[in-house]
Amino acid sequence: MATDSDIALANRLADAAGEAIRPLFRGEWAEERKSDATFVTEADRAAEAAMRAIIESERPDDGIIGEEYGNRNPAAARQWVLDPIDGTTSFIAGRPIFGTLIALMEGGWPVLGVIDQPVLRERWVGRVGHGTTFNGTPVRSAPCPELSNAVLGTTSPHCFSGEQVDAFMSLAKVVAERKIVYGGDCYSYGLVASGHMDLVCEAGLQLHDFAALVPVVEGAGGTMCDWQGEPLNAHSAGEVLAIGDPARLEDVIEAMAGAAHGHSHG
Amino acid sequence: MATDSDIALANRLADAAGEAIRPLFRGEWAEERKSDATFVTEADRAAEAAMRAIIESERPDDGIIGEEYGNRNPAAARQWVLDPIDGTTSFIAGRPIFGTLIALMEGGWPVLGVIDQPVLRERWVGRVGHGTTFNGTPVRSAPCPELSNAVLGTTSPHCFSGEQVDAFMSLAKVVAERKIVYGGDCYSYGLVASGHMDLVCEAGLQLHDFAALVPVVEGAGGTMCDWQGEPLNAHSAGEVLAIGDPARLEDVIEAMAGAAHGHSHG
Repeated sequence: MATDSDIALANRLADAAGEAIRPLFRGEWAEERKSDATFVTEADRAAEAAMRAIIESERPDDGIIGEEYGNRNPAAARQWVLDPIDGTTSFIAGRPIFGTLIALMEGGWPVLGVIDQPVLRERWVGRVGHGTTFNGTPVRSAPCPELSNAVLGTTSPHCFSGEQVDAFMSLAKVVAERKIVYGGDCYSYGLVASGHMDLVCEAGLQLHDFAALVPVVEGAGGTMCDWQGEPLNAHSAGEVLAIGDPARLEDVIEAMAGAAHGHSHG
Repeated sequence: MATDSDIALANRLADAAGEAIRPLFRGEWAEERKSDATFVTEADRAAEAAMRAIIESERPDDGIIGEEYGNRNPAAARQWVLDPIDGTTSFIAGRPIFGTLIALMEGGWPVLGVIDQPVLRERWVGRVGHGTTFNGTPVRSAPCPELSNAVLGTTSPHCFSGEQVDAFMSLAKVVAERKIVYGGDCYSYGLVASGHMDLVCEAGLQLHDFAALVPVVEGAGGTMCDWQGEPLNAHSAGEVLAIGDPARLEDVIEAMAGAAHGHSHG
């Protein structure tokens, strides 16, 4: 279980990452397009280094799984999972809808998650058993009586390959095309927690991409799972669903499986 | 030509639209998903009505082409083109990257354009012959020496159909997939003007969707045209390109035509 002290630490980690990232957002470097990759790496590394320094100082026995600097104390039961900039392309493009992701996992399961948008100073904090807050105020995901009325998000059509394309397109057919929101990265999951979006369907996510999202969405009353409806943990394969109204879980799985049936007949 | 007085009026129109839109962004209505369409219409209509009232009072002889309330004085040489909320899906989803679009057209050509993001209070103003500003400060689009390094935006893959899909995918192959930014609507064009993005490629746009974008992008040093490289005016068919570095225009057209050649052999 995450403690009050863990929550306080996670908030300070997000503060430190934001301090590192804000000066580089929409920086002059954008004019030298060739060095984009370098500058994103700079922002990523500066933010992760700032977070690691705090954890190493205050929780020397905890583990760290970081996107940029790898693992520390891999055998520890408690692991901090850090993604300093989720939504790199939005960051490069100057869109303030990327985020810093911070998760605490215990025994391989996420128990605390933070989605922080440092430019807009928007922060979702989720804690298993204690709910989710947005800038300190509790939020709830929205009821969604009809899947056909859902607002569905996904970051990029390029994240799907092979049969994943069929499954996503089958879900997209059930939702109106005009209600599919592209390009959201972690920010979409925050908006599910706040009740503005209903679903996110993605593939190819790594642990540092999804670990923080689970407590945020579930603390708000939603469900997160893989495409078979199984809970997400350190061993999940990267096919991720976020569903604001858990009553729609079966409908979503059914809609996606509809494509697989069609595919097997083809 | 747009006058200083026209610029002042356009700024007041954007102010009025923002006043109407801000109270409805992320409103409680989001919890009643079924009535989304109604509430978006409410925000759209309130914003357009506020803008029309100002134009009708201060420029009774000018024409108005509005997304919600249609045309006024259709024979006038000067036409104000209004799209109160471009990026409806982002608005519904609670993402502050939609925008209010205001254009002034003379003889069918856009001479003044405003892209306003009322929640973030970000405003691009472009004026033919006078450059583009972002929140009052002049901006320039970025050089892009290599198309393969470009950051490319498009709102939704669903905006393309038939051969348009092939043309876009051919362009997407030249740009790295990880540098394609989805889901931007008008906001992407502002980011091209500010030098953070290099290209936008879209189809299915109507006059109220693209008229305001042209002076913003071109005033910043970029180029806007249709997919054949022709300038955009009241009669354009809705296939739109924005190119931050005009030196890449031929490369973009060539990349997209590559697909057409491939298609004709198939």
